[in-house]
Amino acid sequence: MHTSSTSRKPRIAITMGDVNGIGPEILARALACPELDASCSVLVYGCKQTLEAAQPFINCARTATPIEIIDAGHTIARLNAGTVQRDAGAAAIAWIRAAVTAALDGGVDAVVTCPINKEGIHLAGSNAIGHTEIVAEMTATPEYRMSLFSDAMRIVHITGHLPLADALGKVKTQRIAQTVRIAHQALVELDLPRKRIAVAGLNPHAGENGLLGDEEAREIAPAVELCMRDNIDVSGPYPPDTVFRRMQLGEFDLVVAMYHDQGHIPLKLVAMDEGVNVTLGTPIVRTSVDHGTAYDIAWKGIAREDSLIAAIRLAARFAQGRAKVTA
Amino acid sequence: MHTSSTSRKPRIAITMGDVNGIGPEILARALACPELDASCSVLVYGCKQTLEAAQPFINCARTATPIEIIDAGHTIARLNAGTVQRDAGAAAIAWIRAAVTAALDGGVDAVVTCPINKEGIHLAGSNAIGHTEIVAEMTATPEYRMSLFSDAMRIVHITGHLPLADALGKVKTQRIAQTVRIAHQALVELDLPRKRIAVAGLNPHAGENGLLGDEEAREIAPAVELCMRDNIDVSGPYPPDTVFRRMQLGEFDLVVAMYHDQGHIPLKLVAMDEGVNVTLGTPIVRTSVDHGTAYDIAWKGIAREDSLIAAIRLAARFAQGRAKVTA
Repeated sequence: MHTSSTSRKPRIAITMGDVNGIGPEILARALACPELDASCSVLVYGCKQTLEAAQPFINCARTATPIEIIDAGHTIARLNAGTVQRDAGAAAIAWIRAAVTAALDGGVDAVVTCPINKEGIHLAGSNAIGHTEIVAEMTATPEYRMSLFSDAMRIVHITGHLPLADALGKVKTQRIAQTVRIAHQALVELDLPRKRIAVAGLNPHAGENGLLGDEEAREIAPAVELCMRDNIDVSGPYPPDTVFRRMQLGEFDLVVAMYHDQGHIPLKLVAMDEGVNVTLGTPIVRTSVDHGTAYDIAWKGIAREDSLIAAIRLAARFAQGRAKVTA
Repeated sequence: MHTSSTSRKPRIAITMGDVNGIGPEILARALACPELDASCSVLVYGCKQTLEAAQPFINCARTATPIEIIDAGHTIARLNAGTVQRDAGAAAIAWIRAAVTAALDGGVDAVVTCPINKEGIHLAGSNAIGHTEIVAEMTATPEYRMSLFSDAMRIVHITGHLPLADALGKVKTQRIAQTVRIAHQALVELDLPRKRIAVAGLNPHAGENGLLGDEEAREIAPAVELCMRDNIDVSGPYPPDTVFRRMQLGEFDLVVAMYHDQGHIPLKLVAMDEGVNVTLGTPIVRTSVDHGTAYDIAWKGIAREDSLIAAIRLAARFAQGRAKVTA
C-alpha cells in the first residue's frame, strides 16, 4: 500500500476544500512558498480555474512552479465567496475521496486538507462530521485519534467531536492506553530524540487523590502502567491546568488529552496560526489546517497561510518518517 | 462592615500560609518590593520569627519598612521546610480566620492569602477544601465564585473544585446568570472602561448547533439573554477553544468559564507566574496567589514572588473600587 522510499521527496496531495472559503487563497500562497520545494513535491486536488483566480493573493515575488492539478471531474463554474453552495460541497468531497484513494494506492505519500463547509457537504449528500471521519471510514480504521501539533506542543485526544458528557464516558483504560500507543508511534515516525508522553488527568488537580474525582485512579493510572510495561516513556496522570505549560517548557514531548477542549484550548491559545490537525492511527498520513473556511474573510486576501504551510511540512515529515520506519 | 474611604491607601492583610512552604520567602520578597508602598499599607498575619528567617531571601537592596505582624496566638517553634506539620496547619488556619475577621470588622480592606497545605490543615482539625471555602463560610456567602485574573485575562468559573462529571450537572441557567452578574460587579469595582463579558460554551465548538451537545441552547444561551436584559454587556456562548484567545487579543474583558479547567488551563498557560485567584461574591475582598505551597522548592530562595505581588496589587484595586462603588 505504501511505496514511498526515503531516497526521494515525499509526494503530498493537497485538497482545495470549500472553494468559497479561504482554502484557494491560502493554497495559492502556500504553493508559492519557496521553502516547500525543498521538502516535498505537491499535487493539488481541486479546481484549476479557482486556483488561478486566487493567484492575485500571492504575497511573494515568486513565479509559481507549475503544479499538477487533479479535478476529479469537479470544476467550479461560479465562485460565491462566503456562501454555502451545493456544487462546492460536492467538489470538496470528491477531491478528498480522490486524494485519499491516491494515498491508499501509494500514488501520493500524504494528504493535506484545506477546510470544508459542513453545511455545503451536507447539501451535497454527505453527512460526515469532518475530514477525520471521512478518512477513517475510507481507510476502514476503527481506532483513529484526532491530534494537534505545533512547534512547542503535541496533543493527542482520546476522543474527538463528542458532547462533553459523552466524552466523559469514554475515559476508559483501554481507550487511553491505545491512544498512548498511537501517540508513541507518531513520535517514532517523527523521529524525535525524546518521546516523553504525559497523560493529563480528567478532573481538577488530577482528582486530588480521589477528593475531586476517581477516573484518575480507576481508568487513567492503569492505562499509564500498561503502556510503561510496553516500554513507552509515559507518565501521569498530571493536573490538566499545568501539564500543557510543562510541555511548553520542555518537560514533555506530547500530552494525551482526555477530551476535545482540554487539548484544543491550550494549543489554540499558543499556536493559533500555526497549529496542525493530524489524524493518527490511520494507514495514510493526513494533516490539515487547524481552522475553518472563515467565510467572513474569504477571497479578501487577508487569510494567513501559516497553518497550511505547517500542515504540508508536517505531512512531509510524517511521510518520510513512516517510510523509514516501515523500510 | 466596610469602613474604608477613597481618600486613604487601602489596608491589606496578608496571611503567611503554611510556613514550611514557599509562603514566608515570597512574602519577605514582596514586602520589600518598593512599588507596593504607593498602592497600599500592609499588615501581616503570621509568625514574626519565620518572616525574619526569610529575610535573607530578599532579592533587592531595599531596607524593609517595619511591618505590623499579628500572630493570632500562633508562633512556629521549629521550621521543617517541605514537611507537613500539625502546628503549621493550625497556625495557617488561625491567621486566615483572624484576617477574615479583621476584614469583616473593617479593620482591613482586603485579605491576600499565601498558600496553605491541605494535609496540614486537616491534621490541625480543619476539613476545608481551601481558602475560598473558608472565606465563604466565615462570611456566610452562599453564592461565591472562584476567578482568575491576569493582565490579559479575567476568568470567572461557574463552579470551583468539583469532579468534572459533577461540574457538568451545575451548568444551569440560574447559576450561569448569577456568575455573569458577579463577574459584571467585579468589572464595575475594577472600574474598567469596557465590561464586555463572553460566556464560554460547554461542548466542543459550543455544541455546533446541537450536534455536539445541547447545554448551550438549553442552559447557557438563556442565561446570556437574562443578563442582557439587565443591561450587562454580555454575549455567547462561544466555542471554548477560541474564546480565551479572543479575550487575549482584546475582544472581551472577561470570560465566564463552565468548569475549573476550562478557565485554569488557558490562564495558567499564559500567566503562570502572575495569575491571581480572586474570590468573588463575598462581602470581603480576598485575593490569593495562583499556586500551591511548592514544598519541593521551599526555603531555597528560588520561588518567585510575582503572583503574590500581583495578588496584593489587585486586592488594593478591588478595595479602592469597592469603597468608591459603595460610597
